[in-house]
Parts: sequence; C-alpha cells; structure tokens
Amino acid sequence: MSENSKSQAALQRLKEIDREYHLLGHTAAILGWDQQTYMPEAAVHERADQLSLVSGLMHERITHPEIGEKLGALGVVFDVDPVPQVPEAFTGIDRAFLRELARQYRRSSKIPKRVVAELAKQTAIGHQVWAQARKGSDFFKFSGQLAVILDLVREVSSCLGFEDHPYDPLLDEFEPYMSSAEVTEVFTSLRRGLTKLLDKIKGSGKAVDTEFLNRDYDIEKQRSFGLQVLETLGFEFKRGRLDKSAHPFTTALGASDVRITTRYDSRFFPTAIFGTIHECGHGLYELGFDPTIRGTLLAEGASLGLHESQSRMMENMIGRSRAFWVHFYPELKRLFPDSLADVQLRRFYEGINGVAPSYIRVEADEVTYNLHILLRFELEKQLVSGDLAVNDLPEAWNAKMEQLLGLTPPDDARGVLQDVHWSGGMLGYFPTYTLGNLYAAQFFYVLKADVPEWSKQVEEGQFQTILAWLREKIHKHARVYPAGELCTRVTGQSLNPRYLLDYLEEKFGDIYGF
Amino acid sequence: MSENSKSQAALQRLKEIDREYHLLGHTAAILGWDQQTYMPEAAVHERADQLSLVSGLMHERITHPEIGEKLGALGVVFDVDPVPQVPEAFTGIDRAFLRELARQYRRSSKIPKRVVAELAKQTAIGHQVWAQARKGSDFFKFSGQLAVILDLVREVSSCLGFEDHPYDPLLDEFEPYMSSAEVTEVFTSLRRGLTKLLDKIKGSGKAVDTEFLNRDYDIEKQRSFGLQVLETLGFEFKRGRLDKSAHPFTTALGASDVRITTRYDSRFFPTAIFGTIHECGHGLYELGFDPTIRGTLLAEGASLGLHESQSRMMENMIGRSRAFWVHFYPELKRLFPDSLADVQLRRFYEGINGVAPSYIRVEADEVTYNLHILLRFELEKQLVSGDLAVNDLPEAWNAKMEQLLGLTPPDDARGVLQDVHWSGGMLGYFPTYTLGNLYAAQFFYVLKADVPEWSKQVEEGQFQTILAWLREKIHKHARVYPAGELCTRVTGQSLNPRYLLDYLEEKFGDIYGF
Repeated sequence: MSENSKSQAALQRLKEIDREYHLLGHTAAILGWDQQTYMPEAAVHERADQLSLVSGLMHERITHPEIGEKLGALGVVFDVDPVPQVPEAFTGIDRAFLRELARQYRRSSKIPKRVVAELAKQTAIGHQVWAQARKGSDFFKFSGQLAVILDLVREVSSCLGFEDHPYDPLLDEFEPYMSSAEVTEVFTSLRRGLTKLLDKIKGSGKAVDTEFLNRDYDIEKQRSFGLQVLETLGFEFKRGRLDKSAHPFTTALGASDVRITTRYDSRFFPTAIFGTIHECGHGLYELGFDPTIRGTLLAEGASLGLHESQSRMMENMIGRSRAFWVHFYPELKRLFPDSLADVQLRRFYEGINGVAPSYIRVEADEVTYNLHILLRFELEKQLVSGDLAVNDLPEAWNAKMEQLLGLTPPDDARGVLQDVHWSGGMLGYFPTYTLGNLYAAQFFYVLKADVPEWSKQVEEGQFQTILAWLREKIHKHARVYPAGELCTRVTGQSLNPRYLLDYLEEKFGDIYGF
Repeated sequence: MSENSKSQAALQRLKEIDREYHLLGHTAAILGWDQQTYMPEAAVHERADQLSLVSGLMHERITHPEIGEKLGALGVVFDVDPVPQVPEAFTGIDRAFLRELARQYRRSSKIPKRVVAELAKQTAIGHQVWAQARKGSDFFKFSGQLAVILDLVREVSSCLGFEDHPYDPLLDEFEPYMSSAEVTEVFTSLRRGLTKLLDKIKGSGKAVDTEFLNRDYDIEKQRSFGLQVLETLGFEFKRGRLDKSAHPFTTALGASDVRITTRYDSRFFPTAIFGTIHECGHGLYELGFDPTIRGTLLAEGASLGLHESQSRMMENMIGRSRAFWVHFYPELKRLFPDSLADVQLRRFYEGINGVAPSYIRVEADEVTYNLHILLRFELEKQLVSGDLAVNDLPEAWNAKMEQLLGLTPPDDARGVLQDVHWSGGMLGYFPTYTLGNLYAAQFFYVLKADVPEWSKQVEEGQFQTILAWLREKIHKHARVYPAGELCTRVTGQSLNPRYLLDYLEEKFGDIYGF
C-alpha cells in the first residue's frame, strides 16, 4: 500500500469508529428524549441502566486506543495543547474532522475511567441532594456534596492540563478553544455597559404593564399557536417534532430527526411561546447542518455559545421584535379574545419586553439576564481556583446580587441554590449563555445589513430569506470552524460586546423613552 | 477456586452477558416503538441504521463463544436436540435460565452470519415487493422474491436440523419445543369441530345485525373509553402507556415499561376498542412477570402462542362477553348517544360477535378466524417441504378457501397477498395465533372453575380476582416453564381443542339459537 492509500485507509477507519459513536449517541438521545416526554414513571431505574450501557459503549469507542494510534500515524499532534495540530496535507472537511476527533480523543483519554465513574456517581447523588436542599432552601445541606463534586471537577481540570487558569479546560468542554481570559475581557466590558443601561432604564421612571401576561390562556390553544409559529419560521415537521416536557430542550435523534419541547402555563403565556421559539432556533441550527457532514462528529454546534446564539436570536431579536408581533398578534388575539381584548399591540410589545431585576435567572429579561451569568462566571472561576471556599458561597452570591442587580435574595432557593448545573459538575457551562447573546447580536447586526428589508419581511410572516441567510452563513458549517473563527468569517471581527450593548440600547431606549 | 464456586462464577458471567443483551434488546424496542408512534417520516433511513447497529451488538453478545464454552463447562448439552439438557444440579430459575440460554445460543450460533445477513437483506426487499404486489393485486410480482426468501428459510431449517419435518425448527422459533406433528394433530381435530359449528351457524338461518357498528364514533371519545377500560382491567399506567400506531402492537421497553398501541376508525368502533383490549392482554402478561426474573431472558412469554392466549382471552372470552358489556355498555352509550340510541344491549352483544366467512384474516370473527390459520399452516408446511411450488400457491390458497370457508377470493390482495408474514420470512408464525385461542379457552375453563363468580364480578367492573388468578397461574412464570408444561400445570392436561370448541359451541349456540 502506498503512504497515501495507507493514510486514506486510516482516515476511513477513524470515520467508521466515529459513525458508530454517533449512531450510539443518537440512540442515547432517543432514550433521553423518551425519558423526558412519554416514559412511564416506574421505568426510570431501568432507563438509567439502558443509558449507562449505551454511554459505556460510546466511551469504549471514543477512547479506543486505535484512534490514538491512527491519529499519530496521520501526524496529528494532540496531546499537548488543547488545539490539535493537523498536517497541512489534510484540508477542508477532513481537516476539521481530524481536529475535532483529536480534541475529543484527547479529552476522553486524558481523564481516567475512575474519575469519570466517580463523577457520574457523585453528580447523581449531587442532583438528589441539591433538589432536597433547594426544597428546604438550605445551602448547607448541599455544601458537603458540592465540595466533593468540586474536588473531582478540579481533578478533571488538572488531568487535562492548563497554562493559565484551571477554569480553562472546563470552559473548553462547552466552548471549545475559548480561554477564560478572553471571556473575562469581553464580560468586563459588557458589565460596564449593562450597568449603565440598567441605570438608564431605572432612571426613566417608566413602569411597563405586564398584568395581562397573567390572564387565562388555554393550553391547547397555546400549543396550536406554537405550531403555527414553528411552521412559519420554517421548522420542518417531516424532520422534527414539538412535544411537552418539564424542562424545554432540543435534541437530535438523527440528522433528520430533531425534536424540541416546551412547557405550558395557563396563567402565563410567555413560558410556552418564547420557549418554543427559543428551541426552534436550536432546532433550525441542527436541521441546517450540511448534508455532507451528517452523522459525523462535525454535525454538532460549533460550541454551546454558538448554539445558544441561534436560539437567542430567534427568541429575542426576532421573536420579541415589534415586527414579529405585527404579524402574529392578530392571530394571538383571535385565539384569546377575552384575555387580550383591551391590549393593543404597543402595550403587548412592551409587556413581553419589560425589564426588572429579579432573583431567578431563567425568568430574567434580556438586559438583566446577562448580569445573572456574569455573577455565576465570576464565582465559578473563584471556586475552581480555590479563591472562594464552598462554605462562603452563599454570602458571595448575595453580595454580588446586591452589587449587580441591587437585590438580596430572601433565601437560598431564590439565590445560590436556584440552578441545577453545579450539582451536575457542569462548571464552565454558564458563560455560554451570555456568549450566545453576544454572538447573536453580532450576527444579527450583519444579518440586518445583508437583509435590510428583514423587518418588513417579518411583519409579513416571511422568514425564508432570514432562514436562508442563517443556513448559508452559520447553520451549514456546524462544527467545521471553531466558534471564534466562524464569528470572524461571518462578521469580520472577533467577539465584541458592543453589538449586544447597541442592540439593547436601541430596543430599550425606544421602550423606556431615553 | 472450588468446582462449585467455578460453576457459580460461570453462571454469573452468563447472567451478565444476558443482562447486557436484554438492555440492548429494550433499547432496540424503544427505537422500534418510537418509529411506529412519533418518529418524523424523514428519519426512517437513519433509524434503520441505528436499529441495525443495536441488533448487531445484540447478535455479538448472544453468539459470543464464551457462552458456548461456559455452557459446556457447566455440563449443559445443547448442540443435538432442540431441547437442551441441563444437569440435575441446577434447579428452579437457574435451571430454566440455562435451558433457555442454551436454546437461544444454539439457534443463533448454528445459523451462519452470512445467512442471517442475507435473510435480513432479502426480507427488506421482500417487504417492499410484497407491498407493491399487494397494491397491484398481482401475486406474480412477488413470487420471485418469495422463492428467494423461501430458499433462505429452508437453509435456516437445515442449519438448525430436524428429525421429522423441516417445518419443525421454524415453528420452534416462535413456539419453542412444540413439533409440527403435535400442531397438526390438534389442528385436525379442531378443523372437524369448526366445520361442524360453522354449518350449524349457517343452518340457523339467523343473520346478526351489525349495521350500527359502522355509524359515527368520535375518535377522541373512543380513546377516552379505551383508557377507562384499560384502567378497569388493571393496566398500570405508571408502568405503561397507550398510543396510536398504524398497526397495533405491544412492546416491552423495560420490565416496568410496557407500551401498547391501537388504531382508530371513526366509522367502525370495534377496531380501536377490541384492539386495545387485545393488546392489554399482552401488556398485562408482560407486566405480571415475576420481579425476580425481570431483565433476563426468562422475562418473555413462554411462547408466542402462550402470549397470544393472554390477548385472546382478554379480547374474546372477556372483552366480547355479555358480562363485560353489562358493565361497560352504559358508558359507551353515554359517550355515543346518537349512534347507539336504538341499540339495546342484546343487539349490541350479538353485533360485536356476528359470524360470517370473509376473505381477510384480521377482520374475521372468533369462529372463522381459526380456519384462516389452518389454511396458512397447511400451505406453509407444503411450501417448506417443497410439496407445493411458489407458483402454485395462489391456486392452492383459493382452493383451500373454498374448501374451508366456502369463498373464493376475488383477487390476490384479498387472498394470498393479504398478510405480511411471508415477505418477512416468518414461516412458522401463523399457527401461534390459533394455539393462542386454544390455550386461552383451556385456561379460561379452569379460571371459570376456580372463580365461579367471574361473570358477576365482570358485570360489576371488578377484575382484580381474574387478574390475580392470571398473574399467579400464568403471568408470573413468564418463560420459566415451556408453554406445554405450563399448560399441564395450570389445566392438568396437554393442549386439547375440546375447550375452544366447547366455548364456541356454547357462546354461538346462544347467539344463533341452536
């Protein structure tokens, strides 16, 4: 065999292993989707066994020594730096494939099986303990287990290695190739801007009327409205579904099987509709991956932040825009004539966009949401570096809440215990939410320049041009380019908080009159 | 290690392999259930890949040479006779476990991988070709592919080996440990009895009124009625679900996750309700397996015939009894006041039990249904032995229809092409339907003797005693005893067609007045 055909054979074998890994991944996704939608309650323990078996089979494949050997034989260097080096001979899709496979192999093979198993065990316990602590609103019922989890997370970080900050390899799990120093820089400037903006909003003296959001909204009608919106936004029902679950999510069960969920509250309609539009953004991204990379490890979001940019842009920039409701509000009024009789479009638009500091992240508005994330990011870094002790966490949380939002949580349940992430060992995840907002605003700026008639089209319920733009510029590339590189390709520069700040300033300046 | 602890270790290892096999089996069941209920249409090709991967992993496990070695080391003899010999030292559950594992291993390891793959390929083609041929009602569009499949099925039979008839190892796949000679004997005497009974029914001159079955029945109300019936029959919704699919089925996604489906016809309500009760019978069987054997290869029906006995008893002996409708008819009338206004209970009862020879098996009544099966069984045996050529099949089919039911099918779609089974290579399956009816009647006879107040309880909507009887006598044993042995344990004798004939004679004698 010539050198070249040996290379081709090695590459082919790596693709086969990856293909099997992804078929198993989709199988696990089906088990997970079913668990959260239709599974009878008594099946929960056996489902955990099924998921654990399939995850084990996935782990066997992704840590298979053959991957390391073949990558080495192909000249891919991946055991030093988080960014693998792929020889110049490989170009295009193959180059990206080898880069991502090496990254994934490096991460999975550097963490000992013992640590993976222990983390799985301790976070399973952690989730239960956290849920009970939150119920009783008592952080110190959770702090012991959190310390155990944090130690394991630190061990993961040191197994993976870092030059600058132990938070880096954790962040890299969710936001590949981005360092915490970069995030810190962007977030610092964002924080200044947001604080100023929030002061202006408070200073405007205007209170937005949101009372009508809490009237009666029949759930069956909410669902039918959500389906109409999805149809109009271009969600393909022959390649996807909408279902109900306790926590909304999007999951790919295959390249042509992307399922989203939402939840319903008959006394607060924004939950379901904005949840649906948010997940639709995630779903359209997954459905828009280029057919040539389907079923491979490149058919994933470039990063969690990039994924979130697609849901946030759809939910906030489009779904909470005036233009969107020029089109959809008449239908909403037709469905809920009693509850919306006295609500004109402008009042409706202001109501769904009202800004007010609050305790709970997932209920926050577009402006204060990011302050919740900044708080978590700063605390996480300190927890990981050891500068903040677990026992001092509630105090640090409350102090930061006061500083950033001017509020002190009345209890731990509405403070430090509100989110599930830490109980699952997912440190490094939170910043991706705000990265999503930042990417979204920066992309949206270019979209508006490329499609100046966007708002007129949205007013007419025409989303084809917008979707085509997203597909061409962002969706089809999936994980072929790292998120940062994609950002530069689409917008001509790296991530810049100015776009989000300008967008918010303009939108809320109009609403609050400044 | 002592001999005894070596044995224990070997047995333990076999149980681990089996456990993994069954977790994978349940995973495949989830993929299959989803495909038939909620999967978006474009996902079909990738789902086939997922199923094929999981089936491959199952096949690897069940044909693993370690199984053969360990069984041999334990003294289990399994490569000669279809009934494996397990040393006396093993008793109870372990004994049954080794017997069934040896049986399964023997079957899977005797058939070469090439034959398995070729059969999978040719039956996939076969299904498509059959569907087209049926659409065009032209058997000779299917006959070529059927011949290919039949050759492979014969090869399977000769790989497995047989003493008496090549049909035996095929039947054994679905009805373990029963020979075609036994079935032939029982069916021959059944045929005599059924022919006589059908003559009496025809001779009665009475025509049952079934017009009201075809009135308007709102589908949502049909569903809600079905759910009520399931609840009353004791189907546990925390361990199962009811969904909709094109073809009704029952599937176990886990020991505590048994899902049934039905289909709805707004102009013919028996489809949904008797489909639901039928699948409920299957579902209650699966849910009633003893907890100690859950998740093992013993947690399956003793045979397809035994499984079918549970669905047929529930559907026919209970669900189509007068007592059942004494309880449920008022509710049905309340739901469909217009369509049932002029229909009194007796007319309703006769209508859902009307007997009339017809072309299509799945639409047949309790009496003629079995004649459809006898026809298929006789033709299948001849096809497998080579006494009947594929090209002569339509003629043979039509001649037998005339002989058994006094009808000649107007076309192949309503004749030889009506069933999917042969296109899937499933020769040996059909007799299990009638075996189900036979077991059901024999069990029901004993149930009535043990619970003389059964019909009074059913009239009052009380099913606990009946369910407890089924659980104790049949359900909990699952596959621990072969079907024939279970029949003797429960009824004191081997399978005897007299019970079904007596049951039918009594029921239809009352309806048709003889």
